[in-house]
Amino acid sequence: MEEPSETKRSTLSGRLEAQWIVGFVDGEGCFYVGINRHPEMTAGYQVLPEFTVVQHLRDIQILYALKSFFCCGVVRSNHADRMAYRVRGINHLIERIIPFFDKHQLKTKKKINYIKFRKIVLMIHQKKHLNSEGIKQIRKIASSMNQV
Amino acid sequence: MEEPSETKRSTLSGRLEAQWIVGFVDGEGCFYVGINRHPEMTAGYQVLPEFTVVQHLRDIQILYALKSFFCCGVVRSNHADRMAYRVRGINHLIERIIPFFDKHQLKTKKKINYIKFRKIVLMIHQKKHLNSEGIKQIRKIASSMNQV
Repeated sequence: MEEPSETKRSTLSGRLEAQWIVGFVDGEGCFYVGINRHPEMTAGYQVLPEFTVVQHLRDIQILYALKSFFCCGVVRSNHADRMAYRVRGINHLIERIIPFFDKHQLKTKKKINYIKFRKIVLMIHQKKHLNSEGIKQIRKIASSMNQV
Repeated sequence: MEEPSETKRSTLSGRLEAQWIVGFVDGEGCFYVGINRHPEMTAGYQVLPEFTVVQHLRDIQILYALKSFFCCGVVRSNHADRMAYRVRGINHLIERIIPFFDKHQLKTKKKINYIKFRKIVLMIHQKKHLNSEGIKQIRKIASSMNQV
């Protein structure tokens, strides 16, 4: 069940400020690109970019506030008592998430990761993930992400 | 060595906005009160409130930017490859940290913890930690903090 109640959904709606979101995502956000072998795809791989913020269940209202702010994504159970706000749709990433983080820049080194994520999302939008040269480039960028 | 270089210290100085800090602290900050038995103290206990933000070494410049913003605290090694920005001085907590988070309210449930922390810091400032009734109250509040 995605949305437990209207009350939980709207508690913080409209009350988040852009800079608060940047700070919170600098701390808690994740820009991730999953790449799976997928024989039915033209280039043999499926590319799954994802923007995620994970919180303990106690702060689920923050995740719904992010969903309201960005007008996209879902709030789902992550694991155990943790919940995740997640945006996977390419159009939502292109139209809502990327313009926001282009305008309001991250301040931690997470920004380097975001730039790589952005590059891959734009390549997918340009259908470059459908040929083997594009997939090769995407896999190279993705392999350098989220490293300690 | 507290401050590796002037360059690292000043990279982000003056560039943090209040709402970014609130968002970042909502994610990464900690308001903690340590209580240790201490036979030499009047009431038998030492109370150590502490505001901390921990980051991987790669984002040490963020910790120095927080130090610059609040004009107090230290940046120190935490453990392994993690660094901490830490404010422990009662006067700094009273004059800089508490007025900031009173004005710019936290949005996650960390706020509940902050309110308890604030209460204890004010009690210490009023010297209530020097008598056994005060210590009893402080221990009760502190024991209810940072619970999952």
